Amino acid sequence: MTGTLFDGTFARGGAAAAVSDDAWFRALLEVEAALARAAARTGLVPATAADAVGAACADPSRLDLARVVAKAADAGNPVPPLVRVLQDAVGPEAARAVHVGATSQDILDTALVLLARNAITAIDADLEAAAAAAARLAQTHRDDVVMGRTLMQQALPTTFGLKAAGWLSGLDGARLRLAEVRASLPVQYGGAAGTLVASGGSGVALRTALAAELGLADTPVPWHTVRLPIADLAGALGAAAGVLATVAVDLVLMAQSEIAEVSESGDHRGGSSAMPHKRNPVAAISARACARRAPGLVATLLAAMEQEHERAAGAWHSEWPTLTDLLTTVGSAAAWLADGLGGLRPDTRRMAATVAASVEGALAAALAEALEPTMGRGAAHDAAADAVHRAGTSGRPLPDVVAGIPGVDVEALLEAAAPDVGEAGAQVDAVLAEHRRLTEGTE
Amino acid sequence: MTGTLFDGTFARGGAAAAVSDDAWFRALLEVEAALARAAARTGLVPATAADAVGAACADPSRLDLARVVAKAADAGNPVPPLVRVLQDAVGPEAARAVHVGATSQDILDTALVLLARNAITAIDADLEAAAAAAARLAQTHRDDVVMGRTLMQQALPTTFGLKAAGWLSGLDGARLRLAEVRASLPVQYGGAAGTLVASGGSGVALRTALAAELGLADTPVPWHTVRLPIADLAGALGAAAGVLATVAVDLVLMAQSEIAEVSESGDHRGGSSAMPHKRNPVAAISARACARRAPGLVATLLAAMEQEHERAAGAWHSEWPTLTDLLTTVGSAAAWLADGLGGLRPDTRRMAATVAASVEGALAAALAEALEPTMGRGAAHDAAADAVHRAGTSGRPLPDVVAGIPGVDVEALLEAAAPDVGEAGAQVDAVLAEHRRLTEGTE
Amino acid sequence: MTGTLFDGTFARGGAAAAVSDDAWFRALLEVEAALARAAARTGLVPATAADAVGAACADPSRLDLARVVAKAADAGNPVPPLVRVLQDAVGPEAARAVHVGATSQDILDTALVLLARNAITAIDADLEAAAAAAARLAQTHRDDVVMGRTLMQQALPTTFGLKAAGWLSGLDGARLRLAEVRASLPVQYGGAAGTLVASGGSGVALRTALAAELGLADTPVPWHTVRLPIADLAGALGAAAGVLATVAVDLVLMAQSEIAEVSESGDHRGGSSAMPHKRNPVAAISARACARRAPGLVATLLAAMEQEHERAAGAWHSEWPTLTDLLTTVGSAAAWLADGLGGLRPDTRRMAATVAASVEGALAAALAEALEPTMGRGAAHDAAADAVHRAGTSGRPLPDVVAGIPGVDVEALLEAAAPDVGEAGAQVDAVLAEHRRLTEGTE
Amino acid sequence: MTGTLFDGTFARGGAAAAVSDDAWFRALLEVEAALARAAARTGLVPATAADAVGAACADPSRLDLARVVAKAADAGNPVPPLVRVLQDAVGPEAARAVHVGATSQDILDTALVLLARNAITAIDADLEAAAAAAARLAQTHRDDVVMGRTLMQQALPTTFGLKAAGWLSGLDGARLRLAEVRASLPVQYGGAAGTLVASGGSGVALRTALAAELGLADTPVPWHTVRLPIADLAGALGAAAGVLATVAVDLVLMAQSEIAEVSESGDHRGGSSAMPHKRNPVAAISARACARRAPGLVATLLAAMEQEHERAAGAWHSEWPTLTDLLTTVGSAAAWLADGLGGLRPDTRRMAATVAASVEGALAAALAEALEPTMGRGAAHDAAADAVHRAGTSGRPLPDVVAGIPGVDVEALLEAAAPDVGEAGAQVDAVLAEHRRLTEGTE
Repeated sequence: MTGTLFDGTFARGGAAAAVSDDAWFRALLEVEAALARAAARTGLVPATAADAVGAACADPSRLDLARVVAKAADAGNPVPPLVRVLQDAVGPEAARAVHVGATSQDILDTALVLLARNAITAIDADLEAAAAAAARLAQTHRDDVVMGRTLMQQALPTTFGLKAAGWLSGLDGARLRLAEVRASLPVQYGGAAGTLVASGGSGVALRTALAAELGLADTPVPWHTVRLPIADLAGALGAAAGVLATVAVDLVLMAQSEIAEVSESGDHRGGSSAMPHKRNPVAAISARACARRAPGLVATLLAAMEQEHERAAGAWHSEWPTLTDLLTTVGSAAAWLADGLGGLRPDTRRMAATVAASVEGALAAALAEALEPTMGRGAAHDAAADAVHRAGTSGRPLPDVVAGIPGVDVEALLEAAAPDVGEAGAQVDAVLAEHRRLTEGTE
Repeated sequence: MTGTLFDGTFARGGAAAAVSDDAWFRALLEVEAALARAAARTGLVPATAADAVGAACADPSRLDLARVVAKAADAGNPVPPLVRVLQDAVGPEAARAVHVGATSQDILDTALVLLARNAITAIDADLEAAAAAAARLAQTHRDDVVMGRTLMQQALPTTFGLKAAGWLSGLDGARLRLAEVRASLPVQYGGAAGTLVASGGSGVALRTALAAELGLADTPVPWHTVRLPIADLAGALGAAAGVLATVAVDLVLMAQSEIAEVSESGDHRGGSSAMPHKRNPVAAISARACARRAPGLVATLLAAMEQEHERAAGAWHSEWPTLTDLLTTVGSAAAWLADGLGGLRPDTRRMAATVAASVEGALAAALAEALEPTMGRGAAHDAAADAVHRAGTSGRPLPDVVAGIPGVDVEALLEAAAPDVGEAGAQVDAVLAEHRRLTEGTE
Repeated sequence: MTGTLFDGTFARGGAAAAVSDDAWFRALLEVEAALARAAARTGLVPATAADAVGAACADPSRLDLARVVAKAADAGNPVPPLVRVLQDAVGPEAARAVHVGATSQDILDTALVLLARNAITAIDADLEAAAAAAARLAQTHRDDVVMGRTLMQQALPTTFGLKAAGWLSGLDGARLRLAEVRASLPVQYGGAAGTLVASGGSGVALRTALAAELGLADTPVPWHTVRLPIADLAGALGAAAGVLATVAVDLVLMAQSEIAEVSESGDHRGGSSAMPHKRNPVAAISARACARRAPGLVATLLAAMEQEHERAAGAWHSEWPTLTDLLTTVGSAAAWLADGLGGLRPDTRRMAATVAASVEGALAAALAEALEPTMGRGAAHDAAADAVHRAGTSGRPLPDVVAGIPGVDVEALLEAAAPDVGEAGAQVDAVLAEHRRLTEGTE
Repeated sequence: MTGTLFDGTFARGGAAAAVSDDAWFRALLEVEAALARAAARTGLVPATAADAVGAACADPSRLDLARVVAKAADAGNPVPPLVRVLQDAVGPEAARAVHVGATSQDILDTALVLLARNAITAIDADLEAAAAAAARLAQTHRDDVVMGRTLMQQALPTTFGLKAAGWLSGLDGARLRLAEVRASLPVQYGGAAGTLVASGGSGVALRTALAAELGLADTPVPWHTVRLPIADLAGALGAAAGVLATVAVDLVLMAQSEIAEVSESGDHRGGSSAMPHKRNPVAAISARACARRAPGLVATLLAAMEQEHERAAGAWHSEWPTLTDLLTTVGSAAAWLADGLGGLRPDTRRMAATVAASVEGALAAALAEALEPTMGRGAAHDAAADAVHRAGTSGRPLPDVVAGIPGVDVEALLEAAAPDVGEAGAQVDAVLAEHRRLTEGTE
């Protein structure tokens, strides 16, 4: 039952499958097959030999992968036994076309890049779904007022549309960053010490051909120990996790019993073993749980950038489980948030009622503005704060206290204190327009 | 082939199995069984009902665990469906003895603590093996000179025994810290809001009984959102990882081709796909790779300590995969290092030869000491540094340069420059004596 | 105006001063003075020379510390120029008693330990104040009901006393851990390569004497590259930060406008530049901000444990600013939280009103219990959840829905649904008793 | 002497000054001045009032900044008291042009962005110097052989030029990433709840004008709690730190006494208090120490992305010291590495001698290649490994062992085993060409 209970509680979306052991094997074989083809194109091996390698790689079920697993630990990585198994599978003639000029890290890094590309595709699908849901919320609730809250205190009114537009801008921003990183993922090819010495004088050309075969970026030198591509992945995934977390925490906070401005729709979800009346926002909570694993994993990858000479003694190896965990947990966070946002039930009546009840804050702001011409801005601000303080300590309604201030027209102030959401609508429109450009660009 | 290729490359020792999905299920059932027994002892449920629960928990194969897995995500954790499956299994009569007064977190946290205890036992076995190997090296090589190196420069001679004694002190220190944490692991029991309201007025007594059933520490209040026990685990595991890393980096550095003072014995290990002549110190490299994952995971657990109200909305959930990963990777690092130290082949002739060749450094120190009475300490130090500089830039042997300094007896200096390892031996003996006290204490 | 604006916004308590540059200089001189005394006690230098060194160290104003600063970067640390300045200050005769047998790291590590000890003393004073405030709240509000909240949803009632007791248990736990680490802080002394070769055959005795002079723990070997003492500090400080954060987030959440169960008393604090009516819980927010810096700093220290050979080339140096930042930020968090808890204004009427309004949850639980004998536990739970669901979707009061369920006595259920806080009081008493034991033990 | 001893040991380059307290004040005032100008351009305030504000901001010495410092902690940030001081300075008439429509976070975030921009300029200057030094080394040593080392074992020859080209590719990559982030830094402006309600209906236009005034990017909505710009900074700085660390560790490893292929030129640097003969590579060590602080700080910033509602209660505040520390430490690492690379003394004779001595490895590779046609690739690899093993255990020279293998022409193999650096030169040229394009692009 391995990998089902706890991973299964949280793992969502396609990223986990994209970095599974099966996916790893397929990716390693895909790289070896592409390398054989590229070597044939470069004239280093006969096309027939490359075809034989391609055929062997295309059917993993015929390969003795158990032997690879058994020997991987001894080699420190699975490529040496995989190469051996592949050579045995294709026979001595075609064996020359296996692993041409390559070192283990060439295969492993390129496979890791392919895995990351597939995982990002999966993550992006869920980010896109989350963004689409946020866009719908922004559009639908463009003008529905909700209380703005700063430092967790009620501040001034805003709109639920603007809140959703803020989420949307973050989700679209995360997508853009991941798309840039995805498009820049490079091939790795340099041979044992990076000189391409075993590539028969055609190593640079072979690297270019291999990049083309796999649709990856070419590089002027190997990046065996200069790990900027890993840092780019880490940075963009960490940023995406942060966006997912900030949307999720808003959902969790708005779902609080005392606020209850949103709830999740999942009908069979969120029950408690001890409390039958509870309905927890499980999707947002799970998104938050998954996203919170990211910063530590990013730190591990950045710390692992300090790699020695031509191949690191440990730091490189620490990247594999860390990057796959990072891809998985960010993908799960995205899938959970897409679920949570997709089925979100906003209670706009409740939102409006809270705004209506908050006239006190608006009244104080209006008072400060009214006093400013006579008292100056700073003193006016202090006088308003003092009125609020007196109302709070005396228990009297704020309008009564304000009415007692000489020269103040409390009725006019109350009118001025009516909810005003400024340019919320225009800003929502601007974000939606950007979102449409982005969406059309990617479709 | 899930969980075999990459985990299999690095996962070693018993910790991974101790935190597997199967282990999680067994631990959750062990807690529910113990809770039923404790409730019977406290008089809250009939002994026969508790026995029925115990019988059901003892045979997981009869339980519909697939249903638990299927429902876990909806609940946000696997306990609610597990309780339901268990109630169904024992029938309505005994169902009263299932999950008495408990909330999901009570079961999950206590199970996590049991898993951590088992994993620490596994980790400690490998740390003990590593310590035993270090002790053997310290004893055997108590007086074998090796060059001491500071800031990666040759400094003054020390002994390989003292190096090994330093490793031993770290490994024993890590064991002590883990043993303290293991002994202090607490039960979790408080009910939904921590008041024990569903425990029939006997909640405090039931918690004490449950702690006794499981051999855990009792607590005056639940620690649902005050996560010091998790912080203790994280801290001790992070410290152990740091010790493992510092020993591993020493092995890797001493195994460098240019130093070659140690090698690993694993005959079939460390081969390269591109370079048949290479023998890599795979065990030390793997230990380092595993240990380097720890700091980021510790940071995630510490950041997750900020937990809201009576149960956290996400931070709690992020602990599960993080702590199991941390236990697994530290356990693997310990197993690899036990392997690396256990089969280490020190080349004491090579060590001695390097020390003999380093007379230059010792000569400079002797020169500084000889000049001190006449020139004062600071100027003497400068004069010695100047002699070294002149020898380096001119290509002349240092003794020749020194011989040219007026009033210096170069023969006496060379005698004084013979390797001196000070109180290395006495310090080795002191560490070994402490190790024996610790070992006897734990056997 | 260096170090005042932003540090000044958050820096509180005595920890920052305890790790200032001035404190560093004083600590380095304190170690050199103690080393000279210990060398005299061990018979390695004349007492008169040691006295001269002690006199020089006691009056930093007479030392050319600007020269130390100017030369520190060239040496990679400030000790070499400090030793030179000290030797010059005491003259050639007493210079022999300066830095006897020591290496820079001996002085620096021991000084760092002294600084940490002083900073922990400062941190503990604020933790003690915070704990005292939590204890007062627990005592005063032992029986005042408040809504318990799990996953940020209202769950079942608890007491504000039990919440405060939970905070208290965490604060006391953090203090205990810091006190243990503080008591175990070790001296560092080993000479250049750890062999004590420059200590005239009395290095072990000198180390013991130095430890005694400074009130530090002795060690059997140096810990130049086995950094368990640093890991212990990091772990205990990270745990303390986590406790401070979890209390702070509770305060921030309870201070939300919609909950308003607590507020901070600071009268001139928490104003907004844009909103005169706002009163932010600045102390809790600042505590949270400071505490959140800790996990990343702890990870840096743990990652720095991988240190090479006899002295690390970079990792050691990265500890200094990181550990001082960690001590400072945890100290500030403690001071802010002591402030926030010390002036906390709980609104117990508001707490009680929320509990009274939450009868619905309790009613559902009572319903489930009532149905259990006839339906079995699982089905009873489902029936209760269904009733809540129907009430929610229909808008009818839950008692009406429940009254419609055949065979259910809704009056009895409502009585059963009255707030019950179980064994909250007994648990508060237990935590307070433990706190008194701890407090008496430390006074 | 605050801020000089330890910071002074490591702080280098201009980044520290760019984020000092003085720089913070100047940046806050620069934003307020630009906001006044933008408000005038938008027609919200008279140009004369804006000019008065600009004049006040241009001369901080006339402002009561001590009052700002004193009040900052109460407000939770320095902007409220700064606004008050500014209003008082310009008088009641022009006070209307102060802080128009803004909230504290608008000013603080925009100022932080300006500081980051200046700090990146400083960091980039040192990265550029480091890159220029690496380019010179790559050019000069394009064809100088050096032993390639994988997993810290000698592998196959490469060139020192290719090593330097690898460093160069990393340094240029880090520069590109920082330049992209620098160019994308956005203005922050939204008012208290992000609606621009206090901007007189011209908030969107005012934001655009403010962005133009400061040369920052405009945004469709505020990013008060969607912190992608901070994540971008963190990611690019973390990546730069990783590149600096990987170059630094290469320098430290190559400077090892036993390898001695490079040394640092700093004549007065690197001395030891205990060992006059030592010359430590202080610049590389310091670069490594500074770079290693980055990953934990990046993790703190990413974890702080989870920000609540319209303004976070603590997470936002934790960014300030963390980001300034990150900018400072990465800047110092860059400055140290520029110093270390700029004065590097490669010993190409020593490099060549090591390669010459390594014929054994090349011989084994040649043997494997020679046996492949008859034995197949796998068996040939094994036979070569076996020969190396027999030579090692017997003590016989490898050529003798090889000569004993039937059908092997050892002379031909020795010729084939002569150092071959493959396409190292072409790859160096490619990196240098890219570097020239980048350099010309930025000049």
